[in-house]
Amino acid sequence: MRIGGVLPPLATPFEGGEVSHERLRQNLAAYNRQPLEGYVVLGSNGEFPFLSFDEKVACCRTVVAGAAGRPVLAGTGCESTRETIELTLAVARVGVCGALVLHPSYYKGSMDERALGRFYRDVADASPLPVYLYNVPQYSGINLRPSLVADLARHPGIAGIKDSSGNITELAEIIHLTRDIEDFSVLAGSGGFLLAALALGAAGGIMAVANVAPRHCCDIVDAFKEGRWEDARLLQGELIPLNRSVTARWGVPGLKAAMDLAGYYGGPPRAPLQPLDPSHREELRSILGRFCLVPGEDTR
Amino acid sequence: MRIGGVLPPLATPFEGGEVSHERLRQNLAAYNRQPLEGYVVLGSNGEFPFLSFDEKVACCRTVVAGAAGRPVLAGTGCESTRETIELTLAVARVGVCGALVLHPSYYKGSMDERALGRFYRDVADASPLPVYLYNVPQYSGINLRPSLVADLARHPGIAGIKDSSGNITELAEIIHLTRDIEDFSVLAGSGGFLLAALALGAAGGIMAVANVAPRHCCDIVDAFKEGRWEDARLLQGELIPLNRSVTARWGVPGLKAAMDLAGYYGGPPRAPLQPLDPSHREELRSILGRFCLVPGEDTR
Amino acid sequence: MRIGGVLPPLATPFEGGEVSHERLRQNLAAYNRQPLEGYVVLGSNGEFPFLSFDEKVACCRTVVAGAAGRPVLAGTGCESTRETIELTLAVARVGVCGALVLHPSYYKGSMDERALGRFYRDVADASPLPVYLYNVPQYSGINLRPSLVADLARHPGIAGIKDSSGNITELAEIIHLTRDIEDFSVLAGSGGFLLAALALGAAGGIMAVANVAPRHCCDIVDAFKEGRWEDARLLQGELIPLNRSVTARWGVPGLKAAMDLAGYYGGPPRAPLQPLDPSHREELRSILGRFCLVPGEDTR
Amino acid sequence: MRIGGVLPPLATPFEGGEVSHERLRQNLAAYNRQPLEGYVVLGSNGEFPFLSFDEKVACCRTVVAGAAGRPVLAGTGCESTRETIELTLAVARVGVCGALVLHPSYYKGSMDERALGRFYRDVADASPLPVYLYNVPQYSGINLRPSLVADLARHPGIAGIKDSSGNITELAEIIHLTRDIEDFSVLAGSGGFLLAALALGAAGGIMAVANVAPRHCCDIVDAFKEGRWEDARLLQGELIPLNRSVTARWGVPGLKAAMDLAGYYGGPPRAPLQPLDPSHREELRSILGRFCLVPGEDTR
Repeated sequence: MRIGGVLPPLATPFEGGEVSHERLRQNLAAYNRQPLEGYVVLGSNGEFPFLSFDEKVACCRTVVAGAAGRPVLAGTGCESTRETIELTLAVARVGVCGALVLHPSYYKGSMDERALGRFYRDVADASPLPVYLYNVPQYSGINLRPSLVADLARHPGIAGIKDSSGNITELAEIIHLTRDIEDFSVLAGSGGFLLAALALGAAGGIMAVANVAPRHCCDIVDAFKEGRWEDARLLQGELIPLNRSVTARWGVPGLKAAMDLAGYYGGPPRAPLQPLDPSHREELRSILGRFCLVPGEDTR
Repeated sequence: MRIGGVLPPLATPFEGGEVSHERLRQNLAAYNRQPLEGYVVLGSNGEFPFLSFDEKVACCRTVVAGAAGRPVLAGTGCESTRETIELTLAVARVGVCGALVLHPSYYKGSMDERALGRFYRDVADASPLPVYLYNVPQYSGINLRPSLVADLARHPGIAGIKDSSGNITELAEIIHLTRDIEDFSVLAGSGGFLLAALALGAAGGIMAVANVAPRHCCDIVDAFKEGRWEDARLLQGELIPLNRSVTARWGVPGLKAAMDLAGYYGGPPRAPLQPLDPSHREELRSILGRFCLVPGEDTR
Repeated sequence: MRIGGVLPPLATPFEGGEVSHERLRQNLAAYNRQPLEGYVVLGSNGEFPFLSFDEKVACCRTVVAGAAGRPVLAGTGCESTRETIELTLAVARVGVCGALVLHPSYYKGSMDERALGRFYRDVADASPLPVYLYNVPQYSGINLRPSLVADLARHPGIAGIKDSSGNITELAEIIHLTRDIEDFSVLAGSGGFLLAALALGAAGGIMAVANVAPRHCCDIVDAFKEGRWEDARLLQGELIPLNRSVTARWGVPGLKAAMDLAGYYGGPPRAPLQPLDPSHREELRSILGRFCLVPGEDTR
Repeated sequence: MRIGGVLPPLATPFEGGEVSHERLRQNLAAYNRQPLEGYVVLGSNGEFPFLSFDEKVACCRTVVAGAAGRPVLAGTGCESTRETIELTLAVARVGVCGALVLHPSYYKGSMDERALGRFYRDVADASPLPVYLYNVPQYSGINLRPSLVADLARHPGIAGIKDSSGNITELAEIIHLTRDIEDFSVLAGSGGFLLAALALGAAGGIMAVANVAPRHCCDIVDAFKEGRWEDARLLQGELIPLNRSVTARWGVPGLKAAMDLAGYYGGPPRAPLQPLDPSHREELRSILGRFCLVPGEDTR
C-alpha cells in the first residue's frame, strides 16, 4: 500500500465533555462525498493527548466503520515505547491500516538520534501495521533529520513519514534519499506547503485544513497532477491564511470553530483548551468567507 | 503547612521493566537518614510520563509508607484537566500531602495566560490537596510569568511553586509579589541556583541532584541559614558540575547512573530512554569522585 | 528591470589580510563563462561586516567592472538608517544597479513591524537604486512577515526580496500577495529550496552555493523552465549536501574551502573567522567529488 | 585595578540626529553626585552600533573628561578582529581605562569556542587596556560558557566579565572557577539580578537601569554589604519592573524615555530606533512614579 493524496487528520468531536461518536460519523459521511484518499484519527488535531486509551480505541473503531472503505491511519505515539506498542496493537485489532507514530519528546535532551532510531525500530518490530514516522518539531521540540529518516525508511515495517516541519530543504532531501525505496510515502504535514511538497515529489498530505476545506485541498492536488500550475499556485496561495488560522495561529480551537462555520461539527475542545473567543471567531468567519461553505463543496 | 528545605524528586526504580517498590523503599530508607524536608514522587526525574495511572498511584503509596512521616508531594499534571483532577484525587486517597502540578503543554500555542490560569484554578478548585505550580520551560516550552503566578497565589488552594526555569530575575519577582501571602512557598527547581534562590528569599528547593548528594544540598541550606557565606558559595560552586550532569547534560539516564555510583539504586530508565553509555559513565564517576560516596554521608 | 535566474553572492577574496581585487577579477572571469544572471556583492557570504566603508565601495567598483555587463546588486544594510543610506549612495555612484538591504537587527526587541517598515521606506525614499528586501532570520533573529513584505512591495523604490528564511509557506504567501505588482522579484536565498521556490513562482535565487557550482544551479533553473521535473528534482536533491556544507554547516569558511577545491579562489576568511580545519576540508572534498570541478563546467 | 560597585552603561544623547556632547556632560555632572563606581561608554545602551568610529572616540573623550576621575570603560567590540583592535587602541589614547569587548556574532554558526577564544586572545594581546569579556546571548545569540571564561580569565590582559545572560547558575560557576584569580571582576549585566549576583560573589554590576535610578542601584549594593537582607530584597524586588521596562520590554527607547522622566537627558534614539510611543511613555511614568525623580536622589 502506498498512501497519497489528501487525508484529513480528523478532529475529535466532544459533546458534554465526552467523545461524540455520532458527530464523528456525521462528519465522516460528509467527508466521504469528497475525493479524499483516507483519514487519520488520533493526530494532534484530534486532541489525542486528552483521550484515554479506551477512548482512543473507540474512536478508531468508529472511523474505520464510517470510512467507506478508505484507509485509516491512527496516531499511536505515546511517551513510553511499551505504551506505544500496546496502543498500536489495540488499534490494529479494530481495523486501522497504519500507525502514525509521533516519537516521545518529554525528555528532549535524551532523545538523540540513537534513542529516536531505537524507539522507531522497536515499535516497527512489534507492530502488525505499517509505521509512519511523524516529524513535528513545532510541537515536539525535536527534528527528525533526513539522514535518520532515510535510515529508518529501510526498515520493512516503516512505510512513510508525515513531515510537518515546514523545512522544505529537508523534505526535498528526504524524498531524494528515499527515492529508490519502494512504497515509502512522504506526506506534507500542513496545507501551507502542499504544492511545494508535491512539486518536489511528495505523495500527498495530511493537513488540518482538510477538515475545513477538503475539496480545496484536493483541487490543489488535481491541478498539480494535470500540470495546471497557475491554478495550483492560486489555490495554494488562497489556502494559506485559512491554513494558518487553523494551525499556528489558533490551533485546535481555531480548527473546530472553522469546522462549525464550514458546516461540519467542530464543537468545543476538551479542557484545558478553550473555545475560540468571539472576536477571533468573527475574524475567522471573514477568512472563511472566501471559501464556499457547503460541506462537500467548499470551493469553486 | 509551609514547605521548605530540600526535597529530592525521587527517581522511579525499574527492574526488568517494572517498577521496583523494593528498590524504592531501600532508597527511601537511606534518604531518611539525611536531614531532608520531604519527598516528591512522580516528578520529571521520576519518569512520570512513562508510568500508567495505576503505577503512579502505587508509587505514591510506597513513598508515603516509606517516608518516615515526612511530607510527600506528588506530580499529578496530565495533558487534560479531567485526568489531572482524577489523578490528584487518587493520590490524595493514598496519603500524599500536596500536588505538584505541571500544566499541559502539548498545545503550546493555545496555552496562553487565560488557559493556564483557568487550568490551575479548575484543578485547585477540585483538589483536596494544596496545589503547587510547576514552571519548567525547558521541558514544557511555556513560561509561567510572575504576574500570573502572583495572581494564582491568591487562590486558597494554591500553596507554592517549584520554579525550574533558572530565570533568577523572575524568581525574585515572584518572591517579591507574593511576599505578603501567608503560606506560599517558592522553591528552587534545580541545584544550580539553590543558593541564589535562598538569598532572594526562597524557602528551599526540589532538585534532581538531591537524589545523589542529599547531604551536600542540605549543607548549602545550613550554611546559608547560619550566614556562613563563604562556605555556602563554595558548596554551591562544587555542586554545579554534578548538578549539570544529572539534569541538562545527561538527564534521567545521568541521574540514575549517578545514583548507582553514589550507592543508591538507580538502575535503567524505561524505554525510549537508554542507560548512560559507558564513556559518559566514566566521566560521571570522575565528577562524583569529588563527593563522598557513602549514602547518607555524601559530603564532608 | 526584473531580476531572475541565478546570482551568486560573491565571496570576498583576501590575501595577506587585505581584499584581493585581482582574485576577485579572476573569479568573475570564470563566472562570466556561466549562464548566471548577475552578481551580488557585499552579501553575508561576502563577509560584509568585516569590510570598511571604503573597502565596500572598492569591491563594488571591481565587480561592476568585471561583470561583463551583467547586473550587480550590492548589500548596503548597516545598523543605522543614516549609514545605510550613505553606503547606498556611494555604491550607486560606482555603477551598482540595485541595493540588497538587510535591515538592522542588533536591537531585535525594538525592531517591530513599525520600525522595520519605517527603516525600509526611509532607505527607499533616499536611494537612487531599486531596493531589495533581505530576510534572513537565521542571522538576524528577525522575520519579515509576508504582510509587511506585501506592504513594502507597493513602494515604487522597492523592487524585490531575497528570502533566505526557508519558510516555504511564507515564500508562497509573499508571491501570492505580490502577484499583481509589476516588477517585484522574489528570489530564493538558498540553494536548498531553489526548485521549491521556482515551482511556487519565484524568479530565481541568490545563493552561496552558486559560488562553487554555478552551472549546477543554472541547470536546475533550466530543467524547471523546460518542465523536466525528474531532472530538476534529481539536480536539486544532489545539491543539498553541498549547499548545507557551505551555509548552515560550515558557513563562510566552508564556502571558501569549497571554492578552492572547485578551482576558484576562496582563500582564508578574515578574523575572527578561521579557515576550515583539515578534517572538515577532507569531508568537503568528498562531498564535492560528486560534482565536476572544472570551473565553469561544474556539472554534467 | 579591580572594578566593582555600580557602573551605568551611559546612554548616548542625540540632538538633531547628532551626538550632543553638552547633554552627555550634563548627565555626567548629575551622575557624579551619586556613589557610582565609574562609567561605561559605547555599550549596547549607548547605541554603539549606530556610531561611526570617530563619534565613538569623541564620546570616550567627553566621558573621560566629565567622569571626575572615576574609571571609564568603553565598548570596543566590532565584527572583525582588526577593527576591534583599532578601536581599542584609539580609545586608550583618550584616557579610557578598560575595554568592554563584545565578541563578533554576525556569523553565529562559525563562532565556536575555538574562534571565540582566539578572538579574545588576539584582542587582549594587542590591547594596552585590560579587556573585559561581555556575554549577552539575548543580543548576540552566542553564550560564553563558564569553562571558556575561566580559560580566558587566565590571560593577563583579561580582567573581568560583564555577564548579561541572566543564567545565574553559570554566573555562579564563573565566580567559582575564577575564585583564585587575582583581579578578575565578575559584573552583573542587568539590574534584575544584581542582588543574586552579589550574593554569589560578584563584584558589582553594569546595568542600564543605573542611568535612571543610580541611587537605588547603589542602595542595593550598600544593603547587601551591610547584611541588611530584608532591605536588599525589597529594593531588588522594587527595581525589577523598572529594570524590565528599560531593557527587555522597551529597550533603548524605553531607557531614554525613562531618563527624560527621571530628570536626565534621554532624548530620541537614532533611527531606525523610534522614540517610545506616548501610551508606553504613560505606562512608564506610572512605573517610575514609585521612585523619587530628582536626579541624584532617586530613592528614599
